[in-house]
Amino acid sequence: MEWNPYAGACPTRFVLDRIADKWTVLLLGILEQGPKRFNALLRDVDGLSQKMLSQVLKSLERDGLVTRTAYPTVPVTVEYAITPLGQTLTATLDCLRRWAVDNIETVLGAQRLYDEKTAQGKPKG
Amino acid sequence: MEWNPYAGACPTRFVLDRIADKWTVLLLGILEQGPKRFNALLRDVDGLSQKMLSQVLKSLERDGLVTRTAYPTVPVTVEYAITPLGQTLTATLDCLRRWAVDNIETVLGAQRLYDEKTAQGKPKG
Repeated sequence: MEWNPYAGACPTRFVLDRIADKWTVLLLGILEQGPKRFNALLRDVDGLSQKMLSQVLKSLERDGLVTRTAYPTVPVTVEYAITPLGQTLTATLDCLRRWAVDNIETVLGAQRLYDEKTAQGKPKG
Repeated sequence: MEWNPYAGACPTRFVLDRIADKWTVLLLGILEQGPKRFNALLRDVDGLSQKMLSQVLKSLERDGLVTRTAYPTVPVTVEYAITPLGQTLTATLDCLRRWAVDNIETVLGAQRLYDEKTAQGKPKG
């Protein structure tokens, strides 16, 4: 079988959707530095809701990219860690994150130009 | 000013959202090979609707990653091409796409294991 993310129903499309995702990029960028608790992750990624964090971590765990360990403390402590498979992704995700930072001014400049052009009555406003 | 995609309102978060996106990965993966018409892109990316393609291309154009050129044919021909800025992204996006293909069997194996474990009555099913 030929795996091909350009085919809508290919499992690689779903994996691509998981890894090409801002929350995945941000969360694995933290976990590559060491294990973290749920609440610490929630604090570190501004704007990520508890519900969404929980969903993303569950998917990452199911895909084998992170592990979830519950410690029998009171209350229970839950810690997330990146797996060796997850580590094979981090260099690429770091590049994406760095690209956003390194090129933000160019992108903002392009947006300004585009908005000026479209405001000047080009056919598609 | 310090750009930081971990801050929810930082413009780099929005750029990260644009580039860490499966449609961006798939579309720039095609456009890096040469300019393409709208309908050809629609054909090449299975499962991408006309409306979504139109939205994604508009955002990519606004961010300076692709150009849109309309030729005065009947009917009008619209061609999209990657910009030099867009080209600085393609190596990283290629890595993401390749990772999905290269690791799909490991991911599917992890998913099976996870589903078996959760089906065996672990606290969270």
